[in-house]
Amino acid sequence: MAEKLELNKHIEFLEPPEGAETLRPKPVNLFEDNPINLSVLEGLKGRSILGVKDFKREEVIELAKLAAVLENFEIAPYHIMDGKIVTTAFFEASTRTRLSFESAVLRLDGKVLSIPEGGVTGVRKGESLEDIGEMFNAYCDMVIMRHTETDSAERVRRNLRVPLINAGNGSGEHPTQSLADWYALLKWRPELASPDPSKKSKRLCLGILGTPGSMRAVKSFLLMSLMFQDRISRVVVISQMADPFGEDLVAELKKAGIRYEVTNDMQNHVAELDVIYMNSIAFLGDSYKNLDSEYQLNKDSDLKENAVILHPLARLSELDCSLDNTAHNLYFSQAHGAVFVRQALLISISGRLNRLPKEIPTVK
Amino acid sequence: MAEKLELNKHIEFLEPPEGAETLRPKPVNLFEDNPINLSVLEGLKGRSILGVKDFKREEVIELAKLAAVLENFEIAPYHIMDGKIVTTAFFEASTRTRLSFESAVLRLDGKVLSIPEGGVTGVRKGESLEDIGEMFNAYCDMVIMRHTETDSAERVRRNLRVPLINAGNGSGEHPTQSLADWYALLKWRPELASPDPSKKSKRLCLGILGTPGSMRAVKSFLLMSLMFQDRISRVVVISQMADPFGEDLVAELKKAGIRYEVTNDMQNHVAELDVIYMNSIAFLGDSYKNLDSEYQLNKDSDLKENAVILHPLARLSELDCSLDNTAHNLYFSQAHGAVFVRQALLISISGRLNRLPKEIPTVK
Amino acid sequence: MAEKLELNKHIEFLEPPEGAETLRPKPVNLFEDNPINLSVLEGLKGRSILGVKDFKREEVIELAKLAAVLENFEIAPYHIMDGKIVTTAFFEASTRTRLSFESAVLRLDGKVLSIPEGGVTGVRKGESLEDIGEMFNAYCDMVIMRHTETDSAERVRRNLRVPLINAGNGSGEHPTQSLADWYALLKWRPELASPDPSKKSKRLCLGILGTPGSMRAVKSFLLMSLMFQDRISRVVVISQMADPFGEDLVAELKKAGIRYEVTNDMQNHVAELDVIYMNSIAFLGDSYKNLDSEYQLNKDSDLKENAVILHPLARLSELDCSLDNTAHNLYFSQAHGAVFVRQALLISISGRLNRLPKEIPTVK
Repeated sequence: MAEKLELNKHIEFLEPPEGAETLRPKPVNLFEDNPINLSVLEGLKGRSILGVKDFKREEVIELAKLAAVLENFEIAPYHIMDGKIVTTAFFEASTRTRLSFESAVLRLDGKVLSIPEGGVTGVRKGESLEDIGEMFNAYCDMVIMRHTETDSAERVRRNLRVPLINAGNGSGEHPTQSLADWYALLKWRPELASPDPSKKSKRLCLGILGTPGSMRAVKSFLLMSLMFQDRISRVVVISQMADPFGEDLVAELKKAGIRYEVTNDMQNHVAELDVIYMNSIAFLGDSYKNLDSEYQLNKDSDLKENAVILHPLARLSELDCSLDNTAHNLYFSQAHGAVFVRQALLISISGRLNRLPKEIPTVK
Repeated sequence: MAEKLELNKHIEFLEPPEGAETLRPKPVNLFEDNPINLSVLEGLKGRSILGVKDFKREEVIELAKLAAVLENFEIAPYHIMDGKIVTTAFFEASTRTRLSFESAVLRLDGKVLSIPEGGVTGVRKGESLEDIGEMFNAYCDMVIMRHTETDSAERVRRNLRVPLINAGNGSGEHPTQSLADWYALLKWRPELASPDPSKKSKRLCLGILGTPGSMRAVKSFLLMSLMFQDRISRVVVISQMADPFGEDLVAELKKAGIRYEVTNDMQNHVAELDVIYMNSIAFLGDSYKNLDSEYQLNKDSDLKENAVILHPLARLSELDCSLDNTAHNLYFSQAHGAVFVRQALLISISGRLNRLPKEIPTVK
Repeated sequence: MAEKLELNKHIEFLEPPEGAETLRPKPVNLFEDNPINLSVLEGLKGRSILGVKDFKREEVIELAKLAAVLENFEIAPYHIMDGKIVTTAFFEASTRTRLSFESAVLRLDGKVLSIPEGGVTGVRKGESLEDIGEMFNAYCDMVIMRHTETDSAERVRRNLRVPLINAGNGSGEHPTQSLADWYALLKWRPELASPDPSKKSKRLCLGILGTPGSMRAVKSFLLMSLMFQDRISRVVVISQMADPFGEDLVAELKKAGIRYEVTNDMQNHVAELDVIYMNSIAFLGDSYKNLDSEYQLNKDSDLKENAVILHPLARLSELDCSLDNTAHNLYFSQAHGAVFVRQALLISISGRLNRLPKEIPTVK
C-alpha cells in the first residue's frame, strides 16, 4: 500500500511568497544532522497532555524533529492512524485550532468526530463533564478538547479511559500551541535542539506580550520557554497588569532561575528582543480587549536585525501586514508548522510510531 | 489488508472504573455458546428502520450478538463499510446520538456527511422534506435522520431510494435507542437471548419512568419490550399522566397479553422492579419539564438487590452519581454498547456482512 | 485493492420514481460513442476555478462525459483521492451545496475539513481573508469556498498556494452550479457534446428567470451558455429589472453574437422555450424576495412538448410538484448529476486522472 518516501514532495506547499525566498526556515535543518530518537517519543504512548508540564524538554525536541520530517515528506500514503477515531470537542468554538488538529488527524488517515461548537450542540445543559468523558470512551480513541472552564480538562478526564489533549481550558493552558511556538523557534535556530554543546547559540532575549497568569497561550509559551532556560538570557513580559504572573508562575520563574522583568512599554523594549511573542488581545484584570495602538508592530518598528515575531494568530491590527514579507515573520512558519507538530504528537500518543516509513532518519 | 482478528484487543476500553470490576456484564457471555445466525441479519439488507416494528425479535437478538462480538474485537482493520457514505441529518440537534452513529460509521471505515443542526443550515426554510429526500439519493448510501416533526421520517422517505434509519422523529419513535437498551439487558441476562428453553430466566418486572404515548425513547423501549413479553412478568409505568399510553399503545399492550399498571408513585414501586428505565424529563400533557425530586434515584433508594437501571442519557439530578459504582449501574454499559449495536445494524443494512472476519463465531 | 469495474453497479440509485421510467436522460448516451479525452482534463491540474471563464468549452464537455461515467459506475473502490484533504469553507452557509461537494470528495476517498458556517466559527471577526488563505495552505490540498462578499475569492486566493474552487461569492459567480446545469443539458441532448457536426441538434431557445447581473447562479449559467452560442437560437431573460445585465454582461452577449431579449412576462413566453432556467428568488434592484405567483410553473403551464426545466434548488412554490413526474423535469437529474460533475472536476484539479480505472472509455 505504502508508496516510496519521496524527499521534498511537499515542497510546493513550502515555497514562500514571491520575493521572500529566504524567509521561512527550512525544516530539514532540524533533523539532517540530528536524527530522531524514537524511544523518547515512545514514552508518550497513551499519555494525556493537559499542560506543558506533561512534556519533558527532550520530548519537545524530538516532537519538533519528527514534525520537521513530516513537514518535508508526504506522509499520507502510510495511513499511520488507520482505524483510529479522534474526537475534536470544541465546546468553546475555534475554527483555526479545530482545523489544525483535524487536518493533522486526516493527513494520517485517522477519523474525526467533530463537535465544532458547544452552544448549538445537543449536549444538554446540565450534563456533567464527567458523564461526557464516560460517553467519549465508547466513541473514540483520543479526545482533543477546548472548553471555557479552567477545570474542564481535569473533570472530563475523570471517567476517560482514552488519552486527552487539552486544546485550551479557560485561563488554564494550551500546551500544543506552545509546541507549535517552540517548533518554529527550533526550525529558526536548530542549534537549540542540538545535543552538541559546541553548537550552543547565543542566549535569546524573549519578549512576551500578554498576561501569562490569565492568558493560556501566553502561560503555556512561558512555561515551555522555562524548559529551555539555559538558552535564554532574559524574559521581558509586556503587560498592562502590575503582576501579570500570579503566585504559581512566579514560583516557576524562580525555580528556573531565569532573569525576567515586567513592563508596559513595548516600544522602548523592542530593540532588545530576539523573539517577540505577540497577541491580539490584552487581559485587564477581569476581561479581555483588543490591544491599543502602542502595542502594534509594523515594518518601521525598532526591531533588532535578526529578531523574529511569533503570533498565535488570528491577528488584528497589532501585527501589520507590512511585516509579512520581512525576515521578522516567523508567525507564518509557526502557523504552518502547527499542523505537523500536532501530527507528531498524535502519532506518538496513539502508539503508531512503528508505522512510520523506515526511510526517516532515526537514531539506530 | 486485513489483520488477524485479535480477541480482547479492545479490552482497554472495556475495563470498568477502579473498584467496580464486576459491574459491567461481559459481551462474551452473549455469543460464546450462541453463535450468530447471519442469515437472519442478511434479511436487513437495504431495509429502512422507522420504528421498532421494523424489527423482528430474532433480528434484535442477532444484532445484539453481533454487537457483542464487535464490542470485544477490533473491527477497524477490516474496513467493513469502505466506500459507503452515510448522512447523519440531525435537523433536531443531538450531539450524543449523532456522535454515537458517526462513531459507528467511522469505526467501520464508512464516510460521514454531517448535518449537525437544522437551525443554522442552508436547507432553506420552506424546502420540503420530500425534496430533501430526493437530494440525499445522490449524496449517500444511507440516511440517519432526527427531526422535530413526527411525520418527518415518512415524508423524507417518499423520494428516498437509499435506506433510512429514524434517529428520533418528534413524539414518534427512536428504534435504535431501544436496540441499545435491549442490547444492555441481553448482555446482563444472556439467557434472554438463548434459544435453549431450559435456560429461561425468571420473568422480569420492568419499571418505565415516563409517558410512552408522547416520549419516543420510552415508546420504543416499551414496544421492543413487548417483543419479549414471554420473559416479562409485569410492566409498571411511572407517569404523572393518568393515561400515559394512548389508544394505539393500549392495543399493543393488549395484543401482547402483558400485565401492566400505571402509577405516579415511583418510590413505593422501586422495590418490586428488576429493571428501571429512567429518564431526565417528564411529559405533562402538553410540554416537558425536568423531573421532580420524588422521581430521583440514589444509592439509598429502596432498589432490589439485583435490579439494574437503564437511562438513555444525558442525565440530570434524577440519577445520582452515587449509583455509578454500584451493580445497579447498567446505564454506562447501555451507553457504551449503543455504538456497537449501531455498528451491527449498519453492517446489516448496507449488505456488508460478508466482509466480517471469518473468525467470528457464526452458525455454520 | 481496486475491484473490477462493474457497469451499472449504481443503477439502483439511478432508477426514476415509479411511473416515471423515461424521465431521466441516461448518462451512458453521453460517452458511449464519444470517449473521454483525458488530455483535455489534464490541463485542469492544479488550477483554481473562480468563474465560468476559467473553463474552456471543451473542458466543460469532457468534464460532463467523465461525470457521466462516474454516474454509471461505482468509483469508490478505486480510492482516487486517497490522502488528499479538501476544505469546504462555507462562510455563507449552504447545506445543499456543501454536502454535494463533500459527497463528491468522500466518494473518491478524499478527506473533508468542514467549515459549515461563518457565524458560529472561531474565525475571529476582523481576521483577513488573506490570512485565512495563508492558514489553509497548511491544512489542505484544495479549498472550496462560499462567502457573502463578491471579492472574497480573489482575496483568499492572494496567499493561497493550493487550488481554490469558488462555490459562490456574493453577487459574483457559482461556476460549478453551471457545470451541473450544463451537464444536465448535455445528458438530455448528447449531440450538444458531439464533435460530429452531422449530429448537430436544432438550436435551443433558452429562457432564464432571474437577474444575471446580480444573481451568481444565473450569471454563471448565462456565461456558460454563451460558450455554446452556436447551439442556441435565442436567450430570453425574464426579470422585473429593466436592465438585468449590467455593462460587462452586455459586452459578453455582444461578443458572443447571441440573440437575446428581456421580458417581465414569463407566462407569455413559456411556449417558445426549449429550456427554462427557474429560480426561487427575484432580485429587485437592492434586495431579494420570493417570486410572485406570475412566475410559477405547474403541469398546466403552457410548456412546449419537449421543453425541460432546470432549477438550482431548493425550490419553493414557483416550481410545482405536479411537474415532478413529467418529462419536463430535468431538475432532479440536474441536482443528482451535480455530485458527479464535481467529482470529475475534483479528480482533474487534484491531478488524479491517472488513478481512474483502465476500463473507462477514453480516447486512445
